[in-house]
Amino acid sequence: MLSPIRIGIAGLGTVGVGVIKILRDYSNSIEIKTGRTIKIVVVSAKSREKNRDQPIDSYHWESDPVNLALRDDIDIYVELIGGEDGVAKESIEAAISNGVHVVTANKALLAMHGNKLAEASEEREVLLKFEAAVAGGIPVIKVLNEALSINKVTRVMGVMNGSCNYILTRMEESELSYESIFKEADDLGFLEADPTLDVGGIDSAHKLAILSSLAFGTNVNFSGVNVQGIEAISIDDIKHASDMGFRIKLLGVCEMTEAGLEQRVKPCLVPAGSPLGLLEGGTNMVVIETEDSGSIILQGPGAGRNPTAHAVVSDIIDIINGSKIKTFGVPYKLLKNALVSDFSVDAPYYIRLLLEDKPGALAKVTASLGKESISINRMRQYDHESSKAPVLIVTHSTSSESVEKVLKELPKTGVITQEPVALRIEELNY
Amino acid sequence: MLSPIRIGIAGLGTVGVGVIKILRDYSNSIEIKTGRTIKIVVVSAKSREKNRDQPIDSYHWESDPVNLALRDDIDIYVELIGGEDGVAKESIEAAISNGVHVVTANKALLAMHGNKLAEASEEREVLLKFEAAVAGGIPVIKVLNEALSINKVTRVMGVMNGSCNYILTRMEESELSYESIFKEADDLGFLEADPTLDVGGIDSAHKLAILSSLAFGTNVNFSGVNVQGIEAISIDDIKHASDMGFRIKLLGVCEMTEAGLEQRVKPCLVPAGSPLGLLEGGTNMVVIETEDSGSIILQGPGAGRNPTAHAVVSDIIDIINGSKIKTFGVPYKLLKNALVSDFSVDAPYYIRLLLEDKPGALAKVTASLGKESISINRMRQYDHESSKAPVLIVTHSTSSESVEKVLKELPKTGVITQEPVALRIEELNY
Repeated sequence: MLSPIRIGIAGLGTVGVGVIKILRDYSNSIEIKTGRTIKIVVVSAKSREKNRDQPIDSYHWESDPVNLALRDDIDIYVELIGGEDGVAKESIEAAISNGVHVVTANKALLAMHGNKLAEASEEREVLLKFEAAVAGGIPVIKVLNEALSINKVTRVMGVMNGSCNYILTRMEESELSYESIFKEADDLGFLEADPTLDVGGIDSAHKLAILSSLAFGTNVNFSGVNVQGIEAISIDDIKHASDMGFRIKLLGVCEMTEAGLEQRVKPCLVPAGSPLGLLEGGTNMVVIETEDSGSIILQGPGAGRNPTAHAVVSDIIDIINGSKIKTFGVPYKLLKNALVSDFSVDAPYYIRLLLEDKPGALAKVTASLGKESISINRMRQYDHESSKAPVLIVTHSTSSESVEKVLKELPKTGVITQEPVALRIEELNY
Repeated sequence: MLSPIRIGIAGLGTVGVGVIKILRDYSNSIEIKTGRTIKIVVVSAKSREKNRDQPIDSYHWESDPVNLALRDDIDIYVELIGGEDGVAKESIEAAISNGVHVVTANKALLAMHGNKLAEASEEREVLLKFEAAVAGGIPVIKVLNEALSINKVTRVMGVMNGSCNYILTRMEESELSYESIFKEADDLGFLEADPTLDVGGIDSAHKLAILSSLAFGTNVNFSGVNVQGIEAISIDDIKHASDMGFRIKLLGVCEMTEAGLEQRVKPCLVPAGSPLGLLEGGTNMVVIETEDSGSIILQGPGAGRNPTAHAVVSDIIDIINGSKIKTFGVPYKLLKNALVSDFSVDAPYYIRLLLEDKPGALAKVTASLGKESISINRMRQYDHESSKAPVLIVTHSTSSESVEKVLKELPKTGVITQEPVALRIEELNY
């Protein structure tokens, strides 16, 4: 009989307690699938006394996660504290230096310090695993890092923040403003303590930087992600986009272009009937486009106690089963520093304007577009009661530079009564 | 420097040649990801001289795959011959007895002899891997066997035969008969040499039996799959289903019910706007429903040289990386023999009748349904020029027994002018 695998867990919030519950409830199944038993040895959290739905009295207690990670009676350290720095980082570094494997759900930490942590863990010959860090219940890390490891990935895109997708789909359904639905989501507990991580696109950008590294064998480069949140999306944009056959989604996209690696998180328009367009509520979707194997689409719960805790446990099982995959797929020394692309690849754009209702106004707008070589695919002017006419333009594929320039030029025409809005239309080949 | 991993490949059809190409084109990437080089040592096929787009002169040649599998200079045997018996089976057994790992894409063989092969390989402590056997480019074996191994799966369903899905979607699009589109698919080379494997549902049933074992930890039980093909699907059914908001798909479904394990492959109606309903052409989709992690949907190419060959290569890489997962997730001795459920779980049904256009006819039909306690959700009688009225009925959820009985009773009413058609409507919670 082999000795049990000894676990230390720091962070007993929703996911941490979920991990304890799964390790208890499925102990028999884990033993069958790995040939080993698992023993939770020690836990750490802010408060020892807090009421939790799983008793923790039978475990050792460490008030300092770093001390927990340095113990000599654990084989795997599970970090569920969160935060890109501070004790989460220190405790993971401590565990690695102590020769202990690490499982974490901490996307912010990996996005900011993933390269250093990969180096440290590979040098010390311990594993650093993080299936739960991206898209909760969708095993996208395993799929990219193992199943598709040899496949040449050309683009990865997805909806990776359930809270933003909830807000956008609820706005469309209720026809209420961003502010009302933001409050609703917050009241329901769907948003992070700092909600700008969600609605500002930061959380999606953390996840995208991780996927990008796995997809292209590059160093994690969070600062190279071009981020824009959903705060400026108006109910008008949602309605108009819908009217033109689109839905607005906060998409994370990374692709290797001739100009370098492009990583962007932005609200985009996608066809309403496409798999991404149909994605409702808190569900996540990741599409992996490959050179040889077409597009592989993964959909599932993006968050929640059980899906996330199961992802953590699947990493523990992989470690027990002797996984030898490197942190980001290739040895850290071989991760490349991708040239960061300054501009987005060409795409069609949706442009919304509020026009003075007077002769020649539209001519000035179209002249402005023409000057930047932006050609119009579809245009709609809506019925209006006031003296201001809402105008929607769907362009043919054009450069992001041209769109940026025209957004600066349009107000100078004197016929625009509001800051113009431009959203990228993401072209999907599935 | 570690010695190369030595490969023997039997079967140099589309997929076999694809595997050679990928092992050549991606040799650098494989070395980076595994720390080992791969060397193809020996190949076998029906004809040595056949023109192939990859030269094979530099490899040893064995005309008998069994001799290839018994060589002492290979570490992994890749079986791509196909067929549920004969030399494919003999050569795999030979490789296992020779202490050589096996990678195969042979679903028929695994469906028929998977239990014995799992036993043999586990006893001999070699790996038997088969990612390419189910849904080509979708890594569903890895997802079920590793990512979700601890998750309690409640139901797995999917479209796992691209040829059938091509036929059904093309029929709807073209409004042509099954016979015409069958011929078209055959001319395009989309069908197996024996097309009844595709359109008769056998190929889907092979795949379902494998997924079922992985999902529920049960012995592979192909003979327990209730199979019905798409040969009897008429263009009328496709049109009428569409008219009621559904699409017809050949679905493989396995679920653990109170009455035992149910495995069925049948043409079913699914909501036209659901992910399964929207699936076009040769694409495959597998939905894994779990107790704790909701529904996880995987979509991708179901066949084709490159996706399938990549799946084979991903198994080779897993073997090199020291995978220790058991063939069907749990040690073969612990695989259960599931009680096979005799009846399908209740569902709504679509029933199509051709009715004599005379007073009281519909009353006789509804009385017949009522006698079996089948209640009607929606009914439509179509405009008709002849004396026969097409009638469609969508029932509330009912038992498969009741439907079978009513199908026998209806002709006895004397008002039905054609064999009635009943198709299950699959209820989806996503």
